[in-house]
Amino acid sequence: MFLTRAAIIPLLSLAAGLCSSHARSADWTEQDLAAAAALRDRAIAGTSAFEHVESLTTEVGPRFAGSAGDAAGVRWALDRLAKLGFSNVRTQDVLVPRWIRGSCDVVLLGSSPQPLTAVALGGSIGTAEEGLEAAVLKVESFEALQKLDASKAANKIIFIDYRMERSRDGHGYGAAVRSRVHGPSIAAKLGASALVIRSVGTSNNRIAHTGTLLYAIDAPRIPAFALSNPDADILSRQLETGKPVKLWLKSTSRELPATWSANVIGEIPGRERPQEIVLLGAHLDSWDLGQGAVDDGAGIAIVMEAARLISKLERKPARTIRVVLFANEEFGLSGAREYATQLGEAAAGHVIAMEADIGVGPVWRIESQVAPESVSAIAAMHQVLQPLDVELGGNESRGGADVGPLRALGVPILELSLDATLYFDVHHTANDTLLQVDRKILDQSVAAYAAAAYLAATKQGDFGRLNAQSAGE
Amino acid sequence: MFLTRAAIIPLLSLAAGLCSSHARSADWTEQDLAAAAALRDRAIAGTSAFEHVESLTTEVGPRFAGSAGDAAGVRWALDRLAKLGFSNVRTQDVLVPRWIRGSCDVVLLGSSPQPLTAVALGGSIGTAEEGLEAAVLKVESFEALQKLDASKAANKIIFIDYRMERSRDGHGYGAAVRSRVHGPSIAAKLGASALVIRSVGTSNNRIAHTGTLLYAIDAPRIPAFALSNPDADILSRQLETGKPVKLWLKSTSRELPATWSANVIGEIPGRERPQEIVLLGAHLDSWDLGQGAVDDGAGIAIVMEAARLISKLERKPARTIRVVLFANEEFGLSGAREYATQLGEAAAGHVIAMEADIGVGPVWRIESQVAPESVSAIAAMHQVLQPLDVELGGNESRGGADVGPLRALGVPILELSLDATLYFDVHHTANDTLLQVDRKILDQSVAAYAAAAYLAATKQGDFGRLNAQSAGE
Repeated sequence: MFLTRAAIIPLLSLAAGLCSSHARSADWTEQDLAAAAALRDRAIAGTSAFEHVESLTTEVGPRFAGSAGDAAGVRWALDRLAKLGFSNVRTQDVLVPRWIRGSCDVVLLGSSPQPLTAVALGGSIGTAEEGLEAAVLKVESFEALQKLDASKAANKIIFIDYRMERSRDGHGYGAAVRSRVHGPSIAAKLGASALVIRSVGTSNNRIAHTGTLLYAIDAPRIPAFALSNPDADILSRQLETGKPVKLWLKSTSRELPATWSANVIGEIPGRERPQEIVLLGAHLDSWDLGQGAVDDGAGIAIVMEAARLISKLERKPARTIRVVLFANEEFGLSGAREYATQLGEAAAGHVIAMEADIGVGPVWRIESQVAPESVSAIAAMHQVLQPLDVELGGNESRGGADVGPLRALGVPILELSLDATLYFDVHHTANDTLLQVDRKILDQSVAAYAAAAYLAATKQGDFGRLNAQSAGE
Repeated sequence: MFLTRAAIIPLLSLAAGLCSSHARSADWTEQDLAAAAALRDRAIAGTSAFEHVESLTTEVGPRFAGSAGDAAGVRWALDRLAKLGFSNVRTQDVLVPRWIRGSCDVVLLGSSPQPLTAVALGGSIGTAEEGLEAAVLKVESFEALQKLDASKAANKIIFIDYRMERSRDGHGYGAAVRSRVHGPSIAAKLGASALVIRSVGTSNNRIAHTGTLLYAIDAPRIPAFALSNPDADILSRQLETGKPVKLWLKSTSRELPATWSANVIGEIPGRERPQEIVLLGAHLDSWDLGQGAVDDGAGIAIVMEAARLISKLERKPARTIRVVLFANEEFGLSGAREYATQLGEAAAGHVIAMEADIGVGPVWRIESQVAPESVSAIAAMHQVLQPLDVELGGNESRGGADVGPLRALGVPILELSLDATLYFDVHHTANDTLLQVDRKILDQSVAAYAAAAYLAATKQGDFGRLNAQSAGE
């Protein structure tokens, strides 16, 4: 049914439109548009989203994949979704890799040695027990590393001194993160003994940013670290003096065998077509250093609360709203991959997928990747979100990481862009705590997600399908 | 001479005032007032103060009393003052206590144990090697600790959950710091096994604040820690659940024998009365956790640069400007005490003392503690500073910590209040780095200090003396 984009005769909505100030659309009845606007206004008046984050960070705390906190997070989510009245609350087992951070010491050697604030990159091997001492060679960027001469790099600690740009749409992250993901193996192939990068983050605090590296199969594995921005400045100024600069590095990071975690799923069943799914995703795991309040406690709260508000409506939407709290987004996207794998051809029943994983908000833009004939429906949705100061974006959205495997299966994407201006100050750091979560801003995000999800679940006809070429990686 | 408050006949300045827009005063010639205003404007146009802080943090870094960095700081200061053209550059030996921070671990126990961000308070003893595990008892304030029943406190870890108030004049520090200074021994007398306080600081970052404790001679010594504000929130929320809460603490902090450091002194000799001293103080030591860029690298730069700008004037002031960079302010005020002790009766030659030790600025108020007949001179000084957005305060200033021993010897105090609104976000933390120093704001502070010091050094007659009652502790 959802594969047929029927031409809906908009008689009812047009007729209703004559005596209503609501936006008119061929895709929704006046009642649905009015209900979405009311839902939006109710959320703006105050939601329980902050309490969800408070509960998660108080009762669980850090939830790194495979840790005791991760398992506690799964129990918390099952309990919370059930208490909030979700249906079909269940887990889906997910095998996750297991990595232990251990200790981390980075010392700037010299007449008065200075400890520098650093963290191991996620997945890094540790150093030898006696640590690793070597001269430092600085490059300005990932591109400079790629062009570096192996004769210069051999046995050095390579330091990539690239500072991430701050922006509302977070585009600086993509440029900066390559050093973290691919830098270690490129440096290793050049003969370097270790890699140190400037944190992939925008904060001026002495708190370093972790995140996953990917070791290439054809490179030796070398330990890799990130310095906080002020510490990268300290190192950089030492190098600028022209004197030789050495670091001493020690880390006890190590891998353990893979273990089990779980996706946690709950639903608000559709009134007419429950087999048609509007997916609202967030991820349950967090990095080990912080509390996962912002990344992705806020996302969990936004999607959970948006769905809960919809469940309280007298008139439920035609389609099912499915909240999926994915396992292990941070350290390999295990939950999202498992979900898509299990889904297989049933992905056709997923009408659209949304995700909340860029912090607390506010939502500032609505974007999509839907079939061309559904773009006008996104514009109509935007009419309902506009009072929240939401702009209308384009139709090339790739959504977030957890909906990527669904997009590859042809599932259309609806993206509500959360304001990333301050996000990368706390993302992947110890500073990801409840103090960074603003209750009112979180409510605005809930308002946008609730209204958009409600509209997606009541739309006449679907959003088409994506073909592999446009949707793929 | 400086003990005589001669009635200066203000004929010259009155006459000059007739054809000048400068403030008129019985205490200064028109030329002196004009020179002070020109000095102010020159500093606002740009100074080398930032470069002084950059050099200190790059070439030295942390300078905790008795450490290798402290000795490097003394060498840096001698070299810098000489290169900047100061006269009589010299050291004054100071014996300083020696404390080693060692490692610090604070873990919130429970089904998924969480490491909390904490630091040992300065001077704290360490724990036993196996650490210390105990139930936590929270009190809301220092007063609540004072009233606590010993039967409740015995063998507990006492947690003082008092949050410091942010303000421009920094008054919240005094209320909060009592828990750090006196809390450990009060808790120990009640039978507590350790003390944990919420950081004496205003930051929402996961960075804890250190600073000195004072063990009472009649109390057992127990280990004492500070949690960052977000971590104090985490602990507090655990306690609010009503479940018993335990912490595990481990620290290897320890004392070593006292060792030697030094005050570093340099002068701009007075043209007419070089034996009369206008003292500009700051402290050379820093806490071990940060770079000492703000506390007190900025103060060093402000007083050094203010004096240097004065030294470049064609017409030098009548009195000597003496810059004193005190040893070990942070861990016992050793340098200031030694300076005052060595000075003894020669303190009568110190016409007035100023200090810069509340960060980078800007200067927002001029205050004083001078003889009543000199209060009008402070108001006249204020006229010169007013274009910098400086207010006129009262005559009850106690100055900063390092001028305290001079005040007790009767030396009048001139205080240029540095804006403390953001100061306690970084004070005594790892976050005290060069990134927190704003070049333009630092220049404003230099402008105010330079103009005020110049006026103090050119004033007709002195500022009187303080009597022991008003000046003492």
